[in-house]
Amino acid sequence: MPRKPSYDREDLIRRARDMFWKQGWAGTSLKNLESTLHLKPGSFYAAFGSKDALYQLALDQYAADSTATLAALEHSHGPLGALQALPRHVIENETAPARACMLAKTLLELSPHGHPLADHANGHLTRMEHRFADLFGKAQAKGQIDTSHDPRGLARRYQSDLLGLRISAERPNYDAAATALEIAQSLSQV
Amino acid sequence: MPRKPSYDREDLIRRARDMFWKQGWAGTSLKNLESTLHLKPGSFYAAFGSKDALYQLALDQYAADSTATLAALEHSHGPLGALQALPRHVIENETAPARACMLAKTLLELSPHGHPLADHANGHLTRMEHRFADLFGKAQAKGQIDTSHDPRGLARRYQSDLLGLRISAERPNYDAAATALEIAQSLSQV
Repeated sequence: MPRKPSYDREDLIRRARDMFWKQGWAGTSLKNLESTLHLKPGSFYAAFGSKDALYQLALDQYAADSTATLAALEHSHGPLGALQALPRHVIENETAPARACMLAKTLLELSPHGHPLADHANGHLTRMEHRFADLFGKAQAKGQIDTSHDPRGLARRYQSDLLGLRISAERPNYDAAATALEIAQSLSQV
Repeated sequence: MPRKPSYDREDLIRRARDMFWKQGWAGTSLKNLESTLHLKPGSFYAAFGSKDALYQLALDQYAADSTATLAALEHSHGPLGALQALPRHVIENETAPARACMLAKTLLELSPHGHPLADHANGHLTRMEHRFADLFGKAQAKGQIDTSHDPRGLARRYQSDLLGLRISAERPNYDAAATALEIAQSLSQV
């Protein structure tokens, strides 16, 4: 039998990712996954092995998509423009199943249990932080940001504010657009 | 039989709160609670009715403690000093079972399921936001902060940054003290 095309698998991981992202690890049962992916238990096991293995693939896909989004924003807006556009982009993305960051949600849910997926999520957060630092460094090289600041320090603060924004955006009646604008504006003042 | 003194009940709620705060709603079973509180199922039911009823009491106690902390900081440091001291206080509190805010964790875990406790947590977040706005208003009246800003807008941004800090502080190797200092310093520049 020919192997199924890989885009099928990517699509299955994407659907699982959206469910995990919205409902969390404990809030998503194997039964939920089998039903959403239209897979029988045997097929699920053959394709992904376990819920945790699929969750890890979902985290990797989430991180790859985030990196691609940032690269696309840099391509169209430049390094500083990308950092300024991202806050609004993440809270206005209508196709996302949640406003909050999936990596942060995973860390909060699973690190108290010492679950390896929490470390895996933190690894992706650290790589995103480095990516932000790269963009701050490029913006400095272009003379758009004062070079007296360490790009890694700017990235540390920026990422934290972004995580706060994304949680706040889950609150009904919270004016997340105003906070996103302020984060963007504060970048051209450093 | 005489009624048990109320401090016993407060202490039971505190122990449940710490477990919910650390492990989350799904990560805390009725069996976990009965074991931690040394209560038999019948006694648990008589004292609290249900896990959700106890979770709500735990949220209320968490919010009351947060309000008391802020009032104590205001008493010793004044309104601006309290807002500047809080970021460091929340990440350095050694007795807390988690760095992340219990209200934010509750919102993230339970709002996707439309659980009423998510609304309850958001109500407390909104009251905290108003409390922050009061302090910003008092700091303005003292001439410590520019009066051209709306205290409610300052509170909206401050609370979001604080939630981000508290999540970031859950990450191993994240320099939360540096971010807490920057949040505090930025307040005297507005």
